[in-house]
Amino acid sequence: MTAVLKNDLLLRALLREPTPRRPIWLMRQAGRYLPEYRATRARAGNFMAMCMSPQFACEVTLQPIDRYPLDAAILFSDILTIPHAMDVGLEFEAGEGPKIERPIRSAADVDKLKIPDPAHELRYVVDAVALIRRELNGRVPLIGFAGSPWTVGTYMVEGGGSKTFGRIKRMMYESPRVLHRLLDVLARSTILYLNAQIAAGAQAVMVFDTWGGVLTPAQYEEFSLHYMAQIVDALTREADGRRVPSIVFTKGGGAWLAKIAAIGCDAVGVDWTTDLATARAAVGGRVALQGNLDPSALFAPAATLHAETLRVLDSFGAGPGHVFNLGHGITPDVDPERVAVLVDTVRNYTPR
Amino acid sequence: MTAVLKNDLLLRALLREPTPRRPIWLMRQAGRYLPEYRATRARAGNFMAMCMSPQFACEVTLQPIDRYPLDAAILFSDILTIPHAMDVGLEFEAGEGPKIERPIRSAADVDKLKIPDPAHELRYVVDAVALIRRELNGRVPLIGFAGSPWTVGTYMVEGGGSKTFGRIKRMMYESPRVLHRLLDVLARSTILYLNAQIAAGAQAVMVFDTWGGVLTPAQYEEFSLHYMAQIVDALTREADGRRVPSIVFTKGGGAWLAKIAAIGCDAVGVDWTTDLATARAAVGGRVALQGNLDPSALFAPAATLHAETLRVLDSFGAGPGHVFNLGHGITPDVDPERVAVLVDTVRNYTPR
Repeated sequence: MTAVLKNDLLLRALLREPTPRRPIWLMRQAGRYLPEYRATRARAGNFMAMCMSPQFACEVTLQPIDRYPLDAAILFSDILTIPHAMDVGLEFEAGEGPKIERPIRSAADVDKLKIPDPAHELRYVVDAVALIRRELNGRVPLIGFAGSPWTVGTYMVEGGGSKTFGRIKRMMYESPRVLHRLLDVLARSTILYLNAQIAAGAQAVMVFDTWGGVLTPAQYEEFSLHYMAQIVDALTREADGRRVPSIVFTKGGGAWLAKIAAIGCDAVGVDWTTDLATARAAVGGRVALQGNLDPSALFAPAATLHAETLRVLDSFGAGPGHVFNLGHGITPDVDPERVAVLVDTVRNYTPR
Repeated sequence: MTAVLKNDLLLRALLREPTPRRPIWLMRQAGRYLPEYRATRARAGNFMAMCMSPQFACEVTLQPIDRYPLDAAILFSDILTIPHAMDVGLEFEAGEGPKIERPIRSAADVDKLKIPDPAHELRYVVDAVALIRRELNGRVPLIGFAGSPWTVGTYMVEGGGSKTFGRIKRMMYESPRVLHRLLDVLARSTILYLNAQIAAGAQAVMVFDTWGGVLTPAQYEEFSLHYMAQIVDALTREADGRRVPSIVFTKGGGAWLAKIAAIGCDAVGVDWTTDLATARAAVGGRVALQGNLDPSALFAPAATLHAETLRVLDSFGAGPGHVFNLGHGITPDVDPERVAVLVDTVRNYTPR
């Protein structure tokens, strides 16, 4: 039996339905800036162990919800769970970011990739979703997520993070069909993965396209947006008799917001480099917007942070369809007290 | 006595005067992708030694001009010569990027900074410009350059390169006046520096704002564009009876092209994430545009590279005011033969 959802502000705002106030959650809200997170991580041993244990994942997912009156929980996991399940040898080296032991460099490498079965290789994620949903007990909705095929693909081809994306861009220009096959396998894997999260209890889903912004406009449409459209198109529409809204976020995608809005998602994430007023004009009311405080504003003194937060809230303007968030994830060096100031400012906001 | 300029396509295109064909030069055209550059660097010992020797700087500046029929030479130097002259302890560690031993973290640190005298601490650059100009003997114009105050400031505050710019953003939010004082010192230094380059023979100048794109729109105007406007405003207008055109380039600044165009520069650089047609509509014919082939297109097979180059040329449309370039610098792993294909395609282009 599923608990009744007590706070559905997020779900309503994502569908551009009126809400008494703007909902707020924060990308990477379960993260290293919280001492309780660092304590759990120390107990788990390492990052991937924390992701792979439904108990640990549930624990850290709930930490920010217990500490702040946020309007949503987001599954604690990583965008690289799919390549991990594809057995490419993913490691998180301390302070180094992800490394992939067997990167994808050829058609033969792509051929070897199998679409992970969420009920088996990714079972730990599905179980985490179910457990978190149960433990949330209807306090706030739970957001599931996945990386975009392009973004996940960059790690698989580069063998880790990258500054120039030289290897995947070389593949794009030298053997675009191989790259398309990789992205297609990733898109199909992501569809199964997100739908399994929805079946297990995720009440909204988000696709993170962290690296779409390194592409030309034409490449973005062909190699990133196309696959996100495929995913959005195949998502389960409803669960528990409610629409499951989808959010698509391309960091650095400010110029392409209208194109993203056109793929059928319910909401579009906006990073801090685009004003929400500009973003809203670009999408023309077709979708809700999520964002977009500069994450570094959390370093500001309380009064400045308060003013910057109001500026973001004001910039969206009147009417429904805004979910407050940062323009990117919280960084580890943020003081948790500043987050309290931010959440408080958003919760007490009345449009001027 | 100054040699007559035999090829002034660049200068005319930057001023939106008609030219028989589109001029082309490439950011970082004197660079590691050229075996002759690597040989000079080996002789010089290290990167900074190469910058600080007018002979070596002249030698590598001319290498791409000798190899390809390019329409401009650009001074071989680095955007960190100004902090180097300010004695902050700049080091280029092999494969590591720049490190600054004594980063700027406080008002006291800023107070200690002295504006370098181009005739003394930066004499080696001025001498290099004069020598290159003499050695070019009028073949093509020579472009001088500097980093934008914001971009140079990021290295000085972060102590080197950065992914998140956490320290300078913290300074921006915590003590904006300190940051403004740093940027002001850098802007005043840059004015003297660029005007000294012009006096020594630079026929056009470019300001590289590599990191302006990490700011919000309001921060970009306040902390980056404002100082570039100050610089453009104070530049020497004419030398040898000719206008000295200025180019301003903010990587990731696609959304702000109209604002950049309004500061009084003659041309605006465009990275590969914005189509030139979009860029041209944004600036409304007030400035010339420079760009914007994806540097990774140089990995493509010749036929694809040719087609991508035509696409960029076509996207600008008809009429004067386009200087062909990449959207960012050439990377070291490019095959010099591909550059020949690119240059050839641009030189033989006739608008369709």
